[in-house]
Amino acid sequence: MPRLFQKVVIIGVGLIGGSIGMALRKKRLARIVIGVGPDARALKKAVSLKAIDRYQPNLRKIKQTVQGADLVILATPVGEFEKVARRLVPVLPEKTIVTDVGSVKGPMVRSLERLFSPSGGRFVGGHPVAGREKSGAEAASATLFSGALCILTPTPQTSPRTVQTVRRLWKAIGAQVVLMDPNAHDRILAAVSHLPHVIAYALVNTVLEIQSRDGDLLRYAAGGFKDFTRVAASSSEMWRDICLANRENVVEAIEAYEKTLRRLKRLLIRRNAAGLRTEFRRARKVKTRIKPI
Amino acid sequence: MPRLFQKVVIIGVGLIGGSIGMALRKKRLARIVIGVGPDARALKKAVSLKAIDRYQPNLRKIKQTVQGADLVILATPVGEFEKVARRLVPVLPEKTIVTDVGSVKGPMVRSLERLFSPSGGRFVGGHPVAGREKSGAEAASATLFSGALCILTPTPQTSPRTVQTVRRLWKAIGAQVVLMDPNAHDRILAAVSHLPHVIAYALVNTVLEIQSRDGDLLRYAAGGFKDFTRVAASSSEMWRDICLANRENVVEAIEAYEKTLRRLKRLLIRRNAAGLRTEFRRARKVKTRIKPI
Repeated sequence: MPRLFQKVVIIGVGLIGGSIGMALRKKRLARIVIGVGPDARALKKAVSLKAIDRYQPNLRKIKQTVQGADLVILATPVGEFEKVARRLVPVLPEKTIVTDVGSVKGPMVRSLERLFSPSGGRFVGGHPVAGREKSGAEAASATLFSGALCILTPTPQTSPRTVQTVRRLWKAIGAQVVLMDPNAHDRILAAVSHLPHVIAYALVNTVLEIQSRDGDLLRYAAGGFKDFTRVAASSSEMWRDICLANRENVVEAIEAYEKTLRRLKRLLIRRNAAGLRTEFRRARKVKTRIKPI
Repeated sequence: MPRLFQKVVIIGVGLIGGSIGMALRKKRLARIVIGVGPDARALKKAVSLKAIDRYQPNLRKIKQTVQGADLVILATPVGEFEKVARRLVPVLPEKTIVTDVGSVKGPMVRSLERLFSPSGGRFVGGHPVAGREKSGAEAASATLFSGALCILTPTPQTSPRTVQTVRRLWKAIGAQVVLMDPNAHDRILAAVSHLPHVIAYALVNTVLEIQSRDGDLLRYAAGGFKDFTRVAASSSEMWRDICLANRENVVEAIEAYEKTLRRLKRLLIRRNAAGLRTEFRRARKVKTRIKPI
């Protein structure tokens, strides 16, 4: 694979930022990868983990850091994107392309585009649909994105060169790239990702409440429940921010879900065996329809 | 390990029955293991998989089959226990001990006890908290129960010899045995096992419904949702029967869950970031509290 970039700056070297850096470095896709973050110790650690070549522990010297950068990747928590963008905009070289890795796109893409795009469609939103319950660069891996899906959300303002560059990055580190409207992204992810997390959090807390009445339930946690605790073990701050940022879609998905659950409950109350089997069968078939990508 | 049994009869040689047979045979815990079921071909297959030594493809000759048996294990679908029990009671040798492997205990234990126990507390309910989404003897494994929990639900009617014998069986094949009141079992399992399955079925069907409106959502199914489809891939008939058999407890658990979900939804609608984080954090900690047994 030829070298794609001279200089890549990753702002936020956690699980995702760190994994992008590792993959870039392992495949020698960039001459240099610089990590930016608030915590010098974590960044030093990221250097030793080979996630980045060098680091810059604050945004103050960001002008120097992004000088000559082909690509800046926003990989902080979603809630900090705007603050970071405001620091970047005045100092960013004309040709530098910007992308992010946030799990919510609609309003975020609109706001980042407003900040970056006066200089010519240089921003495109991105969302690698990959992750694990662990966070931080310690959990990063050069292969986190191999076989994963990465959704890019260009708008009419995005320049084709921007999409091409960011698409090349993701393909080079193993992801399959899909283009999608930012709002469609948020509706779809609300259903297949944000809702499942809310549901898992709700289940675990329900069991905790029943537990305080009925003794040590966790001891008897069987397969099903364990899978939920794994989902619910994801970062609480990250998921709070995602749910708030995609609030309307998530609430709508929760309401659709409440309706389905009520329907199942009613079938159960009415001892409707055939109805229950139909519902359960319908759900059962889905697993085989999800193909590995 | 010394041989524990002369003759064990397993009625229903599926995932659980087959795995018990395999473990018994592999550890040479019984002189002979006989499988009973409706399907001669499946039973032949179970012989070739070393789940049983011999088989009897119907209940008609059950008198002969159970002659000299130390232990009979009911491992058919829960819905067939009573029918099988009625065939067994008149022909069962006086000393034969009976247990089952059903996921629901309260009413089932009462009814089986009424049938078996006039002859001296020879029945004890059992529930190995183990399983996988696959079913049938093909999915069976001699190690399915190693490290798993097996709940036995003796009542004041159960003879100590019965509990001792069945407990010895499970310990010998690797399970950790816990004794519990049959009704407590059902309340607890409704929360940690039955509810999670209902929730997973409901989520998968909700996504299918949104999907029919918003395009191919399954393509974007990320980590969280995939875990749910795995849970929802369990046998629809089995879970329908379990939910119906434990109806009141499952409905109560669903209602507790609906309450928690509504609370989360309200926090989200009100943009209560602190409240959401508290809820998510509380759930997050549970994973580390579930110890492997």
